[in-house]
Amino acid sequence: MGERAIPAARSRPGSEDEAGLERIIFFSDAVMAIAITLLVLEIRLPAGTGGDDAAGLAGALLAISSKYVAYALSFFVIGLFWISHHLRFRYIRRYDAILLWLNLLFLMVIAFVPFASSVLAEFPNPTAFALYDGTMLVAALLSDAIWWYATWNDRLVDADLDETLKRRILSTPLKVAAVFATSIVLSFVDVHLARWVWLLLIFGVVGRRRDTESAAA
Amino acid sequence: MGERAIPAARSRPGSEDEAGLERIIFFSDAVMAIAITLLVLEIRLPAGTGGDDAAGLAGALLAISSKYVAYALSFFVIGLFWISHHLRFRYIRRYDAILLWLNLLFLMVIAFVPFASSVLAEFPNPTAFALYDGTMLVAALLSDAIWWYATWNDRLVDADLDETLKRRILSTPLKVAAVFATSIVLSFVDVHLARWVWLLLIFGVVGRRRDTESAAA
Amino acid sequence: MGERAIPAARSRPGSEDEAGLERIIFFSDAVMAIAITLLVLEIRLPAGTGGDDAAGLAGALLAISSKYVAYALSFFVIGLFWISHHLRFRYIRRYDAILLWLNLLFLMVIAFVPFASSVLAEFPNPTAFALYDGTMLVAALLSDAIWWYATWNDRLVDADLDETLKRRILSTPLKVAAVFATSIVLSFVDVHLARWVWLLLIFGVVGRRRDTESAAA
Amino acid sequence: MGERAIPAARSRPGSEDEAGLERIIFFSDAVMAIAITLLVLEIRLPAGTGGDDAAGLAGALLAISSKYVAYALSFFVIGLFWISHHLRFRYIRRYDAILLWLNLLFLMVIAFVPFASSVLAEFPNPTAFALYDGTMLVAALLSDAIWWYATWNDRLVDADLDETLKRRILSTPLKVAAVFATSIVLSFVDVHLARWVWLLLIFGVVGRRRDTESAAA
Repeated sequence: MGERAIPAARSRPGSEDEAGLERIIFFSDAVMAIAITLLVLEIRLPAGTGGDDAAGLAGALLAISSKYVAYALSFFVIGLFWISHHLRFRYIRRYDAILLWLNLLFLMVIAFVPFASSVLAEFPNPTAFALYDGTMLVAALLSDAIWWYATWNDRLVDADLDETLKRRILSTPLKVAAVFATSIVLSFVDVHLARWVWLLLIFGVVGRRRDTESAAA
Repeated sequence: MGERAIPAARSRPGSEDEAGLERIIFFSDAVMAIAITLLVLEIRLPAGTGGDDAAGLAGALLAISSKYVAYALSFFVIGLFWISHHLRFRYIRRYDAILLWLNLLFLMVIAFVPFASSVLAEFPNPTAFALYDGTMLVAALLSDAIWWYATWNDRLVDADLDETLKRRILSTPLKVAAVFATSIVLSFVDVHLARWVWLLLIFGVVGRRRDTESAAA
Repeated sequence: MGERAIPAARSRPGSEDEAGLERIIFFSDAVMAIAITLLVLEIRLPAGTGGDDAAGLAGALLAISSKYVAYALSFFVIGLFWISHHLRFRYIRRYDAILLWLNLLFLMVIAFVPFASSVLAEFPNPTAFALYDGTMLVAALLSDAIWWYATWNDRLVDADLDETLKRRILSTPLKVAAVFATSIVLSFVDVHLARWVWLLLIFGVVGRRRDTESAAA
Repeated sequence: MGERAIPAARSRPGSEDEAGLERIIFFSDAVMAIAITLLVLEIRLPAGTGGDDAAGLAGALLAISSKYVAYALSFFVIGLFWISHHLRFRYIRRYDAILLWLNLLFLMVIAFVPFASSVLAEFPNPTAFALYDGTMLVAALLSDAIWWYATWNDRLVDADLDETLKRRILSTPLKVAAVFATSIVLSFVDVHLARWVWLLLIFGVVGRRRDTESAAA
């Protein structure tokens, strides 16, 4: 087998690797874009909605307001994961089979979000929170597993990649994971509390993220 | 952190920024393409349609004609927003966290259109018009927020970008927003009137758009 | 407005136009890929299918065989339109607002196919054939409208593009349109006849297409 | 017709062919990404689920555990086919009409997976296994048909492509096909056995694949 045909994981950034990485990024973007857009399919007026007059429809639309909240929240969180994926793959220069499978596993969890989101919108009880928060928590951990795997011993990144940047990128999903873990715990106390934790902490993440982005992205 | 790894918002157009912008554009295109194609899922014959003979099916298909209108209209308007996004991002050279989030917010509204469209097709009353027109109005305003943010002090565009072009691109969504605002108001008078306003004004937008495109796109 | 910012329709192939065309092609590919993949959502076992034992499920799966046929046929035809789009846009070098809108109109019809296909699978009567065949006929005509518009006076193609090639590309959709027009007419005589016409003529198109492709694509 | 406009199947790798191949790869990636993400739509709580309290919802979520298994399995297998497609098209340099149609046929089978997966999740009997395993078996054979067609006499690959690599890429789908064929046979004996075969063999494939990837991808 000619060397030319074998971009080993340790090879320098070459066009073959770049083309391969581009397809991985493309596939990931497509899955995330589809998952984020499928969220809207969970917003439905129940069959037999009496919406023929304006007031009746307004009432029916308000009655499913928990679905809009779930839609906006899940859109926001998948968006966060997309930006985070985006940021990581700017620095990843090579790939190997393990990265491929870690990435697929991550996408499997992201593509599961529309289901978890629909359950949360319909049944706001601790089980639904555990399903939803747990999905996000696993996604955050997988997102970090990708980064940790890629940067360990500069396996798939440039050798001169800044250590502070590496750690900073690693820390963001840990904060996201902590938010969702807290929300699981709080949901057993009070589901409203579990929601407020999201909001407060998510704004926190965005605040920090802005720094991260303006500094590093 | 090395300078090389930090494409700050003010940096000159570099390949890192271009690759990042490409992923943003790709993700946006994918979300808009999915939202526009999901519209067809709202067209369904009601369960138990007596369509076994040709005449019965023809009747059933005609009975849901409001769904075809909603399909064509929403396809057209999302198409308009896509062309408009396309036009703006030809001139945007850099990005930062705020642009990312404004763009995600814009996509969240676009991805919501299939739901608003399905409500409008089923319940043609002022509430449905307010939901649909309101969705489009917010999308138009967010589209302009992106452009305004990107061009303010030439933040994310080339410094020599023509001022007339900037203002012209800014003005189109304002006209679109005005159409949908008018439609909301008119729907309280007469829903048929609210529809005619769309048609007349949308053709107006396309007319102008053609000029815009042949001149500037 | 600087000349640099204005790739007019007559401009020579430049990078701005290429980037724009790439986004149009990308968006078109995405819409066609989504429409072709959504077809599978129309294949469903009816609710309350008694499929708990192997024989019962086999019967239920066979009972919806018309859905597999519709799936395969529609996949094939959208695939044909995709290949045809692919072929045309290899020669299109520039674009303007009219091309954008013609292309969007074409995509609107393609994205409608899953609905027409589901109606045909459920109600095999002349009305359903008229809906399905009519959708395909309009798609074929729009596909040709795009090509005719782009090649007329070499508007959006290279001036030295071979005239034989231009006419050959123009003629394929006309044959496709003729097939579907014949199928509409025959469906009023016998729906089985209308189906056989598809098969015979579609194989004809593929046969010719292979020549076209091996010669010109 | 100028030579310039005719990238015949035997032509050397040129930019026209590369652009064409890119669109084919893009379209294939999009279809696979959509099919893999649509899988989640098959996970639904049955209507009228009594999930208002936490324990009831937990029970309802556990009751559909076969759907999660089907989701994860199908995600994994489509992912496997995607990686495999990815690997093949790294070496394919040209294309012709037959490759286009073989690829479309392959995509048609992949896009069918969500249906086969939903049937398997609902009715775990030999018929469902035959449908699911059969779909995967055909996909594996078509994946190999593409590679065999492309590499035969170096039709669409570089003439100096290593013979060992050619055979190795050809052999992986044969193993996958063998797994699914075995699963069909075993499902008539015991459906649990049919499932264990998947797991054991799929891990086997991944194990081998890792070698393949680290060596050749």
